[in-house]
Amino acid sequence: MTLPETLTLGQYQLAYNIFSFTIAAMLGSFVFFVLSRQNLAPRYRGAMVLSALVVGIAGYHYLRIFTNWADLYAISGGTATLVEGAFFNDAYRYVDWALTVPLLVAELVNVLGLPKKQSGWLTFRLAFAALAMVILGYPGEVAATITGRLVWGTLSTIPFVYIVYVLFSELGDAIDRQPGEAKVLVRNTRLLLLATWGFYPIVYLLPVFGIGSDAFVGVQVGYAIADVLAKCGYGFVIYNIARVKTEALAETGTTLPEAVPAAGD
Amino acid sequence: MTLPETLTLGQYQLAYNIFSFTIAAMLGSFVFFVLSRQNLAPRYRGAMVLSALVVGIAGYHYLRIFTNWADLYAISGGTATLVEGAFFNDAYRYVDWALTVPLLVAELVNVLGLPKKQSGWLTFRLAFAALAMVILGYPGEVAATITGRLVWGTLSTIPFVYIVYVLFSELGDAIDRQPGEAKVLVRNTRLLLLATWGFYPIVYLLPVFGIGSDAFVGVQVGYAIADVLAKCGYGFVIYNIARVKTEALAETGTTLPEAVPAAGD
Repeated sequence: MTLPETLTLGQYQLAYNIFSFTIAAMLGSFVFFVLSRQNLAPRYRGAMVLSALVVGIAGYHYLRIFTNWADLYAISGGTATLVEGAFFNDAYRYVDWALTVPLLVAELVNVLGLPKKQSGWLTFRLAFAALAMVILGYPGEVAATITGRLVWGTLSTIPFVYIVYVLFSELGDAIDRQPGEAKVLVRNTRLLLLATWGFYPIVYLLPVFGIGSDAFVGVQVGYAIADVLAKCGYGFVIYNIARVKTEALAETGTTLPEAVPAAGD
Repeated sequence: MTLPETLTLGQYQLAYNIFSFTIAAMLGSFVFFVLSRQNLAPRYRGAMVLSALVVGIAGYHYLRIFTNWADLYAISGGTATLVEGAFFNDAYRYVDWALTVPLLVAELVNVLGLPKKQSGWLTFRLAFAALAMVILGYPGEVAATITGRLVWGTLSTIPFVYIVYVLFSELGDAIDRQPGEAKVLVRNTRLLLLATWGFYPIVYLLPVFGIGSDAFVGVQVGYAIADVLAKCGYGFVIYNIARVKTEALAETGTTLPEAVPAAGD
């Protein structure tokens, strides 16, 4: 989409502060996932490494997006004016998503604790569909016309629908096999994933409604909030599932409760 | 509040150096909390992870505030003059507080070692009140008028009073159940929390007294010092409580003294 020539100071500062908040949320979550993985049984620590990767990579990209935004407009007399020759690099987001979205689906599969062969094939199909979704979305994001945005957006929806289908059909059985409290948590995680991922297409469509600079600022703010929920929030939920399953393992004595005394990291 | 057009070089440098000191204090504390959590029994390590998150997030925001301050005034002939179009972003502080203040109350509850159900509900209420306190304070901080500052400041005081009430009524019993030396330490922590948090409203009110640029610089310096005490200082006190309680656990043999030999990290 074309950049608005001017923004109000309020619009400019809203996106500015949301970007800064997002950096703090991503880096804070990174520290949490790295330090807290040792509370978990070894088999679930991989999910926390994936969570840390996701928010670490996103934190890096939001540092870039923040700097890009700070240099994009010049403030004078209560108005933000587009700097001559400056451009906004939507690719930061899409490179971020191409790297992190496959990791997010791998996290969910990891925490389900399926047999290795089954989980490998499932991760591959979901990660591939997630990557296709992101790659097909990008040409629409940078398209000059609304038609381009709609065509690529529609193509991107196909792998999205496939992911939802797999999560709600094939994963149903695996979820029913989860122990006690974990079953409810995994069900909720599937809904959280659907709700947060469903938020992106709505943000993507904002420019279609022709609301000018509000749409542009809305896209920035909307993607940032969706990213915090889908990456940090999702990671915390996965952590909780892994913690509940670690406790269940310790109680039933299915494995040594390695996580509890294994303090040495 | 509106920015002063000029500051003396001494005023400008005072805030500049206090901001830099604050960054060093936050990052130094971050390293301490990360490295020292393994001296503690596993059940208290969560409090150190929270401490590390708090000072890490604050360190990020003070890096931003420092850069903001450095770009805000131009020095010439012993005077600092406001740069055309530059603005001071108070939102950094409020985003920081919105993220970290709920974590600070969660830390205190964690180290009390209450039954899980009780501590969950207590954390939720205290964290929610803390968040409300920060959110209600922000419109007053950026208000153009003294009246706006006073109205929002008063509203923000309501959840603050609620927090103090919970800490001094409901927490009384839990504190009396703490073992030996820990009892005194937890009592002192409650007072430290009250004293450091009580410092913020005083700083907040400085502009009301009509002391011009001194008030503006005083707010910057006052918040920075309060943040160092309420985040780093508070974290060290919590660490001491957890260490005393770890030793008590080891002596009574309530649990294996896992934390002591697990030096491997």
